[in-house]
Amino acid sequence: MNFNEKLINAMKRNESLLCIGLDPDPELMPSGMGVLKFNKAIIDATSDLVCAYKLNLAFYEALDDGIDDLKRTIKYIPDNIPAIADAKRGDIGNTARAYAKAIFTNLGFDATTVNPYLGFDSIEPFIEQWDKGIFILCRTSNPGAADFQSLPFVLKRKQLPLFEIVALRAAQWNKQSNNIGLVMGATYPEELKLIRQNHPNMLLLIPGIGAQGGDLASAVRYGANARGQKAIFSSSRQIIYASRGRDFAEAARQVASSLRDEINYHRSTLTSAR
Amino acid sequence: MNFNEKLINAMKRNESLLCIGLDPDPELMPSGMGVLKFNKAIIDATSDLVCAYKLNLAFYEALDDGIDDLKRTIKYIPDNIPAIADAKRGDIGNTARAYAKAIFTNLGFDATTVNPYLGFDSIEPFIEQWDKGIFILCRTSNPGAADFQSLPFVLKRKQLPLFEIVALRAAQWNKQSNNIGLVMGATYPEELKLIRQNHPNMLLLIPGIGAQGGDLASAVRYGANARGQKAIFSSSRQIIYASRGRDFAEAARQVASSLRDEINYHRSTLTSAR
Repeated sequence: MNFNEKLINAMKRNESLLCIGLDPDPELMPSGMGVLKFNKAIIDATSDLVCAYKLNLAFYEALDDGIDDLKRTIKYIPDNIPAIADAKRGDIGNTARAYAKAIFTNLGFDATTVNPYLGFDSIEPFIEQWDKGIFILCRTSNPGAADFQSLPFVLKRKQLPLFEIVALRAAQWNKQSNNIGLVMGATYPEELKLIRQNHPNMLLLIPGIGAQGGDLASAVRYGANARGQKAIFSSSRQIIYASRGRDFAEAARQVASSLRDEINYHRSTLTSAR
Repeated sequence: MNFNEKLINAMKRNESLLCIGLDPDPELMPSGMGVLKFNKAIIDATSDLVCAYKLNLAFYEALDDGIDDLKRTIKYIPDNIPAIADAKRGDIGNTARAYAKAIFTNLGFDATTVNPYLGFDSIEPFIEQWDKGIFILCRTSNPGAADFQSLPFVLKRKQLPLFEIVALRAAQWNKQSNNIGLVMGATYPEELKLIRQNHPNMLLLIPGIGAQGGDLASAVRYGANARGQKAIFSSSRQIIYASRGRDFAEAARQVASSLRDEINYHRSTLTSAR
């Protein structure tokens, strides 16, 4: 089953656009607990509430034996829930090919984030894998996002910010296999609104709700399409570190459940307003 | 010893601006040979000819047990030759911190390449490590580099390509610890010339000579500064896959030696023309 089908099925089955970021940080986890055990408990407690899990490779690369924990976590995620690599890779053609192999073949992810700075040949080896999902960084959720992504560029005598040009190119490249989405931070609702207006059916991966401070109502209103679909809302720290005690998994479930319901409430106001 | 000192000492000791990319590809290596054995033989044959080794993480991540080979290779590189991670990472602040830990603390690299798309807070955790070298992608060597890096940007009513803005910002950020350099592909001599003119003393990491087709004479003329310094010329496939036979290490030494000498010849024409 390809990524898009798996994602849509999980969204329907769990009535959820919520993605949980499994980003292990030993300083925030219950003391003495191993990463794999922690992740398994979170997955057991939340797999009926999410449309996807997102694993940022940095947190595993920063740990001793982290890659082993990463592999085992991906294997543990139920087959009917997609696993997204938050890898943000970007390199020249033959090297991008090696990264695509590492992420899809070796690690077994269903989708990945990629960085557009190196242009088409850095992204092509990923999108050639038509059954995988590719999320191109567009306007990210961090404070420095504006440094380059919002610079005004001149295109056909109009001024457009760089992230809009990235979105335009992504939409063109998407004609090849319809497996491209965009990463749009929830922390910048105006930019999110703009991209959704110009790309009504593009799949958006929207991090930055929760700990990063993005307003959920705006993120859903501007990020989902008119039918309240085509968006994945990702939260990590707010959910998985809801408690540092023995009840961490139960606490994570409660926060995840509330977030899912809040997202669904805001979706319902979208569709009822049509 | 910090990265800059280690690099300059190696440049002087080996009279070399040549960096060898240790990018293992089992399809191009002598058949049946393991990555670690291959890398050790290349290092033994060339460590008196180079100013640095560069290891692209993609090629190790694409292999089973590749990270173990990567760690052992870094340990095997002589202490007086810097090891550069070609990682091109870029992520939001707390995640960038995890990548910096992975690359510098866990793997033990002296320097790394980073991607600027996410802005300052994605680069800050790297440059805070004042004793390490940080190479920010500016104009890369691949065909798709122009897709975004050369888009005209409006700054104070002038039009500048994105890669020039990246270089300007990098120069500002470099005031903090003087540990920033730029990645400039040898395949675009005009862009290289422009950046060197505007940044006469910035350290440039210049890939794309050799298999990627960059002209060495132009790369040295435009990439080195007026004293024939402040540039690292990197080649991988042309050197390490010079032969697939038992003589691969000897063949690699011959190509590396010729490249070093050619680079030095072009440097000498620069300084004698002053």
